[in-house]
Amino acid sequence: MRMVDIIHNKRIGGELTREELEFFVQGVTGGNIPDYQVSALLMAICFRSMAAREIADLTDLMAHSGEMVDLSPIDGFKVDKHSTGGVGDKTTLIVAPVAAACGVRVAKMSGRGLGHTGGTIDKLESIPGFRTALPPEEFFEAVRRAGLAVVGQSGNLAPADKKLYALRDVTDTVESIPLIASSIMSKKLASGADGIVLDVKTGSGALMKTLEDSIALAKTMVEIGEHNGRRTIALITDMDRPLGTAIGNAVEVAEAADTLRGHGPEDLTAVSIELAANMVFLAGKGSLAECREKAHEAIASGAAFGCLKRMVEAQGGDSRVLDDSERFPQARERCDLTADRGGFLLSTDTEAVGAASMMLGAGRETKDSVIDPAAGILIRKKTGDRVERGEPLATLLTDRPETLDEARRHLRTAIRIGQEPPKKAPLVYARISKDGIERYDG
Amino acid sequence: MRMVDIIHNKRIGGELTREELEFFVQGVTGGNIPDYQVSALLMAICFRSMAAREIADLTDLMAHSGEMVDLSPIDGFKVDKHSTGGVGDKTTLIVAPVAAACGVRVAKMSGRGLGHTGGTIDKLESIPGFRTALPPEEFFEAVRRAGLAVVGQSGNLAPADKKLYALRDVTDTVESIPLIASSIMSKKLASGADGIVLDVKTGSGALMKTLEDSIALAKTMVEIGEHNGRRTIALITDMDRPLGTAIGNAVEVAEAADTLRGHGPEDLTAVSIELAANMVFLAGKGSLAECREKAHEAIASGAAFGCLKRMVEAQGGDSRVLDDSERFPQARERCDLTADRGGFLLSTDTEAVGAASMMLGAGRETKDSVIDPAAGILIRKKTGDRVERGEPLATLLTDRPETLDEARRHLRTAIRIGQEPPKKAPLVYARISKDGIERYDG
Repeated sequence: MRMVDIIHNKRIGGELTREELEFFVQGVTGGNIPDYQVSALLMAICFRSMAAREIADLTDLMAHSGEMVDLSPIDGFKVDKHSTGGVGDKTTLIVAPVAAACGVRVAKMSGRGLGHTGGTIDKLESIPGFRTALPPEEFFEAVRRAGLAVVGQSGNLAPADKKLYALRDVTDTVESIPLIASSIMSKKLASGADGIVLDVKTGSGALMKTLEDSIALAKTMVEIGEHNGRRTIALITDMDRPLGTAIGNAVEVAEAADTLRGHGPEDLTAVSIELAANMVFLAGKGSLAECREKAHEAIASGAAFGCLKRMVEAQGGDSRVLDDSERFPQARERCDLTADRGGFLLSTDTEAVGAASMMLGAGRETKDSVIDPAAGILIRKKTGDRVERGEPLATLLTDRPETLDEARRHLRTAIRIGQEPPKKAPLVYARISKDGIERYDG
Repeated sequence: MRMVDIIHNKRIGGELTREELEFFVQGVTGGNIPDYQVSALLMAICFRSMAAREIADLTDLMAHSGEMVDLSPIDGFKVDKHSTGGVGDKTTLIVAPVAAACGVRVAKMSGRGLGHTGGTIDKLESIPGFRTALPPEEFFEAVRRAGLAVVGQSGNLAPADKKLYALRDVTDTVESIPLIASSIMSKKLASGADGIVLDVKTGSGALMKTLEDSIALAKTMVEIGEHNGRRTIALITDMDRPLGTAIGNAVEVAEAADTLRGHGPEDLTAVSIELAANMVFLAGKGSLAECREKAHEAIASGAAFGCLKRMVEAQGGDSRVLDDSERFPQARERCDLTADRGGFLLSTDTEAVGAASMMLGAGRETKDSVIDPAAGILIRKKTGDRVERGEPLATLLTDRPETLDEARRHLRTAIRIGQEPPKKAPLVYARISKDGIERYDG
């Protein structure tokens, strides 16, 4: 088999056989195929796409390029959750405890973030003492004790994906649904869960800007999961505005804790309930309506908050921060952005808000950047809110005062104020499962 | 400027600016852009193509990536000729002397061949003593004395093309009209001629299998030439059958000499006259009809043959081989392929004939293969000829008897015999100049 023939087959629009994909994935993993041939194939895939069978095979092979985590030492149905990423997206910190409180086991491996804020792992590390690197037996034991645990991804999870991703980033081959879907799902398959709930964001702050593309990506990922024996459901959720009011690391953990105590922002609470309900549903705990009810109860009863506390304790963290956010590291500089006129908050350019957050130190610009756990943004007015001139729109938090001017300028241009209230947009657009697509009214 | 942004611009179907193309070509030449980004851009070009302006700029930049030959020490209008390559294509050895005999200066740089036979340079080297590596002053002096000279390409002619071509070959990005055209024309621009006549082959033995693709390639190359200040004309000529009757190296030189003495095969003579007439036309020696007349006269009078002889002598070769082909190196093995039934020769799979020729030792399978100057094939029956059972169809020549069986099998399957004479196909399909396309009747 020759790589140039595989490239040719894809360039002319053919379907790659499992053998061809195996040759490719093994060659990438082993470093036997030169990067220039890999990138040529990736570009051909951007143009020609892949059939469902091809994508499922590619993802399975990528998953098997490294360690396949075996979660069988943990009893019960294990559900994983993944978000394609958005600004202010701290849902994992909410839905995992809610699902655990409903009897689902959540043994989650999570990545670090590159961009506007840290990833879930970075956010959790803002809790003093919290350990994200646990040996397998300790990880399993933590799940058994608390119902859930969140640890950093093993270095050998889907190494083929790691290599492909690095190459896609510098060859402009990121924007391809088969490549995005196989990248995400290869790590999910390797992580060993029985069921997977995907949160596919759509809108200005999301990887997929249009609803159509988001649905296509979601469908592809659901197909990959189901084809490889994992129950998979995807929700398409809104990322045309930041989710909740906190953007950063410590501030997001604090907001997640608030939400689990029943005091969370409306949008964050609603999206989290829907995601958690689908996790509970996948675990076979009743109809979706019943599972929604269970998720609500888990918050109302305090059971979910208790799960988060137990998880933090099991992983060595100081759980008192969850009750008292003053115990988190605090930013030295706090400064408000105020409205320069009155009216209604029409829209927020979510990507620009994310960029401001990164500037303040909440995210990583490059792999080597150091995250400031206390940095971030607190949104004071959300889309649709009435605003008076001079009222605070947001509060900027940082230890790097030199960043404030530019971050503030970014934030100012991101927020549009007008005289008429904007049309209300749905929080959850659709639910995609093996049975098809179900559209929500909002 | 970042290469990844240039790739993006092309991937989404944009037109690259001259500055972007300059960044790319300089980066390729200097080795500053990693191959994986180069191949990603090449693949994007395969899918998105390029606008005429982009191709002209790219080609000009590729030409300027190395030495630009200055032919001004030679007086008069210099015309170059290029063929996209075909089986039995020895037209350079005919049209250059014919054009020279008509007062055109032909200072030609030519490549070595990879494939069925050697290139023009390899063919000329079958002449004992012939030198293809001349220092510039000696090259110019040879042109002044004989009206023409053919030397090997300088190592530093369009080095960007050399690098791109090597990468295209292993990333399946050869089949792209902008990339093929810029590759050919960058070397032509760098070679310094004032006018260029292109012989674009079409058919089973050609790079372009369809007339439509051949015309598209020809138009693109003419546009590149004219845009860069070179008078350029392309002829689309047939390669659905080998040209003439000799395929190899020494045998092709011998056939060229025969043709210049007026005894050449009809098809080879006709195509050569048409190409030479266009070279003479470009040099401003009259109308195309007048130039055809001049070309005929140059052969009939023996003037063209005289030019070839003088060229061979000026380049140190033993010109007696041109009068007596027995003086060429002779193959040890000669063996006929005979017809297994009678009828009409319907068609010849030119590519398969080429493959047989390579097996016999007339061409290079890899860069390091050694060419056997005496090896090759003599076609005894051409398309349309009546054949009796047992009559020789072709004669195989080689010093490597172990290759005969497979070459013969290839040749056998390449030749189809039927009961009805085939439809006559044109030798020259069309002529493309800055004034547009003129179709020939055949």
